[in-house]
Amino acid sequence: MLYEKLKQIKSLEQERMESTRLRVDQLIKPQGSLGKIEEIAIKLSGITGVAMPSLDRHAIIVMCADHGVCDEGIASAPQVVTLLQTLNISKRITGVGTLADPHKTKIYTIDIGVNAELNDPAVFSRKIRMGTGNISRGPAMSRSEAIKALEVGIEIAELAIKEGAKILGTGEMGIGNTTPSTAILSILTGASPYEITGVGANYPIEKLDYKASVIERAITINTPDSKDPLDILSKVGGLDIAGMAGVMIGGAANQVPVVVDGFISTIAALIACALEPNVKSYLFASHASHEKGAKLASTTLGLEPFLNLEMRLGEGSGAALAFNILEAACRMNSDMITFEESGIGVV
Amino acid sequence: MLYEKLKQIKSLEQERMESTRLRVDQLIKPQGSLGKIEEIAIKLSGITGVAMPSLDRHAIIVMCADHGVCDEGIASAPQVVTLLQTLNISKRITGVGTLADPHKTKIYTIDIGVNAELNDPAVFSRKIRMGTGNISRGPAMSRSEAIKALEVGIEIAELAIKEGAKILGTGEMGIGNTTPSTAILSILTGASPYEITGVGANYPIEKLDYKASVIERAITINTPDSKDPLDILSKVGGLDIAGMAGVMIGGAANQVPVVVDGFISTIAALIACALEPNVKSYLFASHASHEKGAKLASTTLGLEPFLNLEMRLGEGSGAALAFNILEAACRMNSDMITFEESGIGVV
Repeated sequence: MLYEKLKQIKSLEQERMESTRLRVDQLIKPQGSLGKIEEIAIKLSGITGVAMPSLDRHAIIVMCADHGVCDEGIASAPQVVTLLQTLNISKRITGVGTLADPHKTKIYTIDIGVNAELNDPAVFSRKIRMGTGNISRGPAMSRSEAIKALEVGIEIAELAIKEGAKILGTGEMGIGNTTPSTAILSILTGASPYEITGVGANYPIEKLDYKASVIERAITINTPDSKDPLDILSKVGGLDIAGMAGVMIGGAANQVPVVVDGFISTIAALIACALEPNVKSYLFASHASHEKGAKLASTTLGLEPFLNLEMRLGEGSGAALAFNILEAACRMNSDMITFEESGIGVV
Repeated sequence: MLYEKLKQIKSLEQERMESTRLRVDQLIKPQGSLGKIEEIAIKLSGITGVAMPSLDRHAIIVMCADHGVCDEGIASAPQVVTLLQTLNISKRITGVGTLADPHKTKIYTIDIGVNAELNDPAVFSRKIRMGTGNISRGPAMSRSEAIKALEVGIEIAELAIKEGAKILGTGEMGIGNTTPSTAILSILTGASPYEITGVGANYPIEKLDYKASVIERAITINTPDSKDPLDILSKVGGLDIAGMAGVMIGGAANQVPVVVDGFISTIAALIACALEPNVKSYLFASHASHEKGAKLASTTLGLEPFLNLEMRLGEGSGAALAFNILEAACRMNSDMITFEESGIGVV
């Protein structure tokens, strides 16, 4: 199913984008004066294939999973917080649920690998396994589990779209997940873990070198093939990261835009784009995460975030804030009049 | 009335901010991980004096006025565009009207000095005079006219608050208004007009030195006192700029937050803060304008914009996009649970 969906992903509809660009240039403003809002509107018409898309209903898909590498003491919070926060996210009482628009944004909370039995009707039960293996001692998961996790992402993306979402956001909850994310970034860019390892959820700065050494060990022991995204994902990745990459693939395959959140989400985007480069055309960056490796990850992905709020929470909290801006870009495209319609004539 | 309002502006309620900071630190997230969203929530409680303010209704006040200096050929659009766009703004078919939330944001369009008779019930008629004088040949307006324009801003801010607005945004429409704005910036910072003059609404780059020379002449001929904001405003300013500064003073005097938009709005903020430094505590920056002098203006004001969209339209278009983010910060404060409430205990 994964490969079938990857094949469905087309490049953007260039003719539609050209006609939208023409319209945007004729809107009643100095040409180019709405900057990236104009580019967003043009890209959205290319993604959706619609002249004047509307993004009035949003979904954030939060992938929740545990990370065996927590056994190495690389996280400041105990692993059980993943379980507790998964339940809280489904109740909309955490960061993402309160920042998201209460009337327009639905949150899908997915147990894709929480290390606990979790029977709550508000959480989608799609557990692949009880958290990943400890990557500093062996692989995170098998290759087939990585594929299954990607497919969960695709499935939930398609469910959200079926239920009305015009745009998707990607979020995660997984204590310890900056560690596999930084490992992936190191493999894809060649940067040393010692240069790019950050504090995640307030891990002590004085212990960062230790955290980097665990990441280095994970890479050394697993020897992932840097040209094979599934190999990287299964050996040093995470179920949450795989699920998010799946959401991006699912959105792209269905011509639905997907908002990348912060650091973990950007890493998932790098995996999704390594599997199929056309995925990138369907993505929008939201905020510039304050996590140390975030800037390198964004630069590598090649998408510039437009929100600078020094956030580093994850959960999809930055995506939640970006939706209204993308929606506004659609309104510019559909509701602003042209110089001709105004009777001014182009000035 | 101006001086009375200036006297009403208090410093923020420190105790309220401290108690909000305590709560924000206990919310169920790593401390500090929501970055500026946390700072926004704390500042908003200090502004409003309320533990959990809500910003569910917004107003953008668009000050429309003409600039006599257009006679020098410093704008690419003809002056009549100010009149036509004033009418269009009141119909919500321009940039600000389409980017603003259709359900939550009311737009007040004010004729504070359009150089034409304008009898439209959708536009507030508060004309001080038929545009300013040509600042490259004499003063923009008299000192008493500048005070009247500031008072119009205060009056309309108070009207919007009375009509339900919990937060105000400042916008403008005035062909040629980057010229007086750049003159004010030059006077306040000492920067040469040749270093900070930008293209405004697509003025030809090859003519920028000419535009700068007009600005330099305006400063030389009027010799404004750089320590007297009313002298600067009346000699090289604009009625739109004065009106916006008035809105900021009106918001601050009523403990209502005000969003600064782009370049012109930041210049108005510099004037308002020169009149009463406490105004600054009530202001939020929205987007980093792409106009050349904008960065210096923001740095001088000391408020860092959080949106990077390369916009340079004005009208309050950036403020329109910022409201939802400030509103989300309030929801974080009121709707997120604490660690204690969650039963996790602080981690």
